[in-house]
Amino acid sequence: MSDYRYPYQDGVFVLNHLVGLEQICNEAGLEEFAEGLAEAVLDEASKLGCEKLAPLNVKGDQHGALISNNRVQETVGFADVYQQFCDGGWPSLAANPEFGGQGLPDVLAVAVNEVWQSANLAWALCPLLTQGAIEAIESHGDEALKANYLSKLISGEWTGSMNLTEPDAGTDLAALKTKAQPNGDHYLISGQKIFITWGDHQMTDNIVHLVLARLPDAPAGVKGISLFVVPKFLLDENGALTEQRNDVFAVSLEHKLGIHGSPTCVMSFGENDGAIGYLVGEENNGLACMFTMMNDARQGVGLQGLAISERAYQHALEYAKERIQGTLRDGSRISIIKHPDVRRMLMQMKSSIQAMRALVYVARAETDRAKNAEDESICLKHQKRTDLLTPIVKGWVTELSQEATYLAVQVHGGMGYIEETGVAQYYRDARILTIYEGTTGIQALDLIGRKTLSDSGEALNELLDEIHTDLDSIKHPDLQDITQAVLEALSTAQKVKGWVLEHRTDSDALGSASVNYMMLLGYLCGGWLLAKSASIAFEQLAGDEAGNEFLQAKIVSTRFYTEQLLPRVTALAAAMYAGADSTMALKEEQF
Amino acid sequence: MSDYRYPYQDGVFVLNHLVGLEQICNEAGLEEFAEGLAEAVLDEASKLGCEKLAPLNVKGDQHGALISNNRVQETVGFADVYQQFCDGGWPSLAANPEFGGQGLPDVLAVAVNEVWQSANLAWALCPLLTQGAIEAIESHGDEALKANYLSKLISGEWTGSMNLTEPDAGTDLAALKTKAQPNGDHYLISGQKIFITWGDHQMTDNIVHLVLARLPDAPAGVKGISLFVVPKFLLDENGALTEQRNDVFAVSLEHKLGIHGSPTCVMSFGENDGAIGYLVGEENNGLACMFTMMNDARQGVGLQGLAISERAYQHALEYAKERIQGTLRDGSRISIIKHPDVRRMLMQMKSSIQAMRALVYVARAETDRAKNAEDESICLKHQKRTDLLTPIVKGWVTELSQEATYLAVQVHGGMGYIEETGVAQYYRDARILTIYEGTTGIQALDLIGRKTLSDSGEALNELLDEIHTDLDSIKHPDLQDITQAVLEALSTAQKVKGWVLEHRTDSDALGSASVNYMMLLGYLCGGWLLAKSASIAFEQLAGDEAGNEFLQAKIVSTRFYTEQLLPRVTALAAAMYAGADSTMALKEEQF
Repeated sequence: MSDYRYPYQDGVFVLNHLVGLEQICNEAGLEEFAEGLAEAVLDEASKLGCEKLAPLNVKGDQHGALISNNRVQETVGFADVYQQFCDGGWPSLAANPEFGGQGLPDVLAVAVNEVWQSANLAWALCPLLTQGAIEAIESHGDEALKANYLSKLISGEWTGSMNLTEPDAGTDLAALKTKAQPNGDHYLISGQKIFITWGDHQMTDNIVHLVLARLPDAPAGVKGISLFVVPKFLLDENGALTEQRNDVFAVSLEHKLGIHGSPTCVMSFGENDGAIGYLVGEENNGLACMFTMMNDARQGVGLQGLAISERAYQHALEYAKERIQGTLRDGSRISIIKHPDVRRMLMQMKSSIQAMRALVYVARAETDRAKNAEDESICLKHQKRTDLLTPIVKGWVTELSQEATYLAVQVHGGMGYIEETGVAQYYRDARILTIYEGTTGIQALDLIGRKTLSDSGEALNELLDEIHTDLDSIKHPDLQDITQAVLEALSTAQKVKGWVLEHRTDSDALGSASVNYMMLLGYLCGGWLLAKSASIAFEQLAGDEAGNEFLQAKIVSTRFYTEQLLPRVTALAAAMYAGADSTMALKEEQF
Repeated sequence: MSDYRYPYQDGVFVLNHLVGLEQICNEAGLEEFAEGLAEAVLDEASKLGCEKLAPLNVKGDQHGALISNNRVQETVGFADVYQQFCDGGWPSLAANPEFGGQGLPDVLAVAVNEVWQSANLAWALCPLLTQGAIEAIESHGDEALKANYLSKLISGEWTGSMNLTEPDAGTDLAALKTKAQPNGDHYLISGQKIFITWGDHQMTDNIVHLVLARLPDAPAGVKGISLFVVPKFLLDENGALTEQRNDVFAVSLEHKLGIHGSPTCVMSFGENDGAIGYLVGEENNGLACMFTMMNDARQGVGLQGLAISERAYQHALEYAKERIQGTLRDGSRISIIKHPDVRRMLMQMKSSIQAMRALVYVARAETDRAKNAEDESICLKHQKRTDLLTPIVKGWVTELSQEATYLAVQVHGGMGYIEETGVAQYYRDARILTIYEGTTGIQALDLIGRKTLSDSGEALNELLDEIHTDLDSIKHPDLQDITQAVLEALSTAQKVKGWVLEHRTDSDALGSASVNYMMLLGYLCGGWLLAKSASIAFEQLAGDEAGNEFLQAKIVSTRFYTEQLLPRVTALAAAMYAGADSTMALKEEQF
């Protein structure tokens, strides 16, 4: 198994030069931290992540969570690292200081989260979902809920879970049946939820379940859904933890293709007396509350796509350097990294990962900018950008992660298919990423509907204008091939945007084209941010950083990306323009 | 788990109308079989394949082969079906009548093999590799070897295995170290082989290992490799099986990502007295002999790509018809097959599978045509076409099978990630297909080097001319969009062929571009054969088959393919033209 290291140079480059971490710190009133913050924090996170958490990744795969008597036992060793994670203050890094958080930028927390997700994706799902619970309670909970639950979740003393899916209600939440019966100051929740990640474990004293359910008199469909907090153990009137077990239990675990270290639970609510739950936000407004936690989780899953691709790439790279196959004319034997086709695969991974990282971090910085904005219109602008980029971060990055983990196996040849090699685990683990928290198809519909048509393409126009301005400002003749390629992709994006707006009433055309549309915009965003990176690298190389090999490589990766990946934009646009006729033509019996 | 059915209509359509099975039968002097042959044989194969073999597929996955005391025990139930397979005469279908074969066309055997491979890929690897052993012995073995081994292999009474790979010699066979010491009328083989599929089992009385080894005085590199037959049990001087165990043993099994039902053995030769082996062909000419069996196996693996895609598609289709999610405006709930994005995925699977089937069957028919040709130049022409198409069949089809099995999981949403659903098995099983019998990269190098440059593109020119002629002959205005799209792809293929020939001395450029080149030609071949199919369907619909829904759907699938998949050709060509600079630029430390 290869050792994992956080790609420090690239991470710090993106944070400092592409995201503008210093400016974000200044806007947040954290001037004293701005200088060297990223370096110091990532260094410290790497110690725990690479040395303690990464070695448990294979163990989680081979000895996944188990259940007996409604009690889920996580992989041995996970709880120890979780305790160190809390002791180090990691869960509270970017959280609200009012509830014990350290108030550092979200984008810094995302870079740190890359460490955990690369080191051990199954384990790191637990704090990722806790983060969703925090967002939901902080944004929509009343004072009592905040007082009782927020600081414990932020410190990591308790974890959170998201309980949305039911057997007949996956993507289609309108169909959900779990009931909430008003009962004095609380509600009694009853029903069954499936696919509940980290729905139970023994790492903490309590678990805070966020649960979608329906009131007795609720309207049908998604307008009749409410969100509740259902703690595993109840609190007393002072908010102190009691030993009184709430009526919520894990009843079984799924046997999955990957992420074996992450318990995926079937949860039963109210099988006995009814599970005590507390309303979050207003009655029947659960969908809005859910989207708060869901959007956070969607960006988190996009980050997972980046993180597992990076881990798989490092594994493949090490193998490619060590594995000897082939002989030169002078009789010397060579490692496979010297073979052009192996290089092609490694460069594809490397360049697409750099594009993913740039997009994931830049998208997350928009939430910082929204938070820190003094002017409401500026806040709104950044919020709209976040909303626009979220489905691209989730959809495009996780789709690319399938290709990256596929290629990592491929570089290994036959050894890649042997489980002991370890690279197949990334391939299996990654496979969930285009499915959970909304499939690729759902991200694409969100992007084309809520994020493009609903404002007649205004937020997208702003993004495309910004890309245009950025590309226009790159003047170096040496980078002209790169900017030209991205400009062409931009022009295609403008055309497909027009096509989408023209077809706004044709749901078949939009539905058929949506994934191609999302992928196209993803490739464009990747090209844009890499072109900016190459331009920054070029300037630094012309100045203090002459001869810096990382910066030279950044320009090469960018060029590779524009040459080898960006041409896909044309194919995606052509597929869109073909419309929906042949997609929709067949009767069901003709398939 | 879904039931598997051979896609009878499409299979028979390809055989009768695209391949021209009747003509092949006539050329082979099998006029009496021509009428209705495909239908009858496939019907019978389906009974065994769908009813008996397919249900064992999950069992093989969950209870794979085990080893103890050098004895491999295959999955319970596999041996019974194997016996029925032999009793039905299936192994001998297309084999040489001189050795007990039935002498039916190879292309018919391929269609039948699709049944076995779809039903149970892990199990069906055993007869697939036996076929390679038969080819090697029949083409290169002396009379004694043929007399002793061929009829037993052809009847299925014994199975064969291919022993090429060693820990340090995978793709790079020049590095192989297994030794062959002359010893009277035989050789003593010693060494270790890895990744030996079905290297041991208890389904038959004997196993015939084909083994690459090096003589004491052999030249270095691939010119010093010889091929040997090493039986598990030795024969007496009359060729009768004895109970004398040869010194060849399975010493361990690999723990793999998929195909758990197929034992992947580490084989030890000559650990004790030396394993008795018999030379196949001439000394130091093993590579040529190996390619005989390898090329056969490569086409077989391409077929596996088609077969597992078909199985996965059927699984996804059934789910898409049954799974209810979403509500229409009138309040009625709908199955997910009604959602355009789900249809897009199903259509992509369906259309690419039809393209794969057309190519796999058509390529195989070329071996029949070569075999049946009375004129040597015609034989050579068909042989060259086989050689040209083999890397495309192996490389392109198996790469497409990754996408098809990926989409089959995706259609299932969260259920796809649960192993009990069954669709994840196809995804795991399929992952080996782009690796074994030569990775995708190796197929691409074969195509660009041995199959394009070595004859200065002559065989490719003949193929491109034929495609052009075929497209020119499609005159129906209703199909013009289709022919136009394929003509554009053809024109791109002609240009990239020119680019390849221009860069013939630039190994970096060729190596970097090779996979893109292979994929491009694959998409073209798929488009060509689907366009031909659509044209045939169109004519039939205008005649006796008016209203035939299968034929209508064939035209729709073709249109979908040209609209949604064929545009990739442009992106692949653009990536090729970019050359190797950015692929080769980085130092190893810069990755």
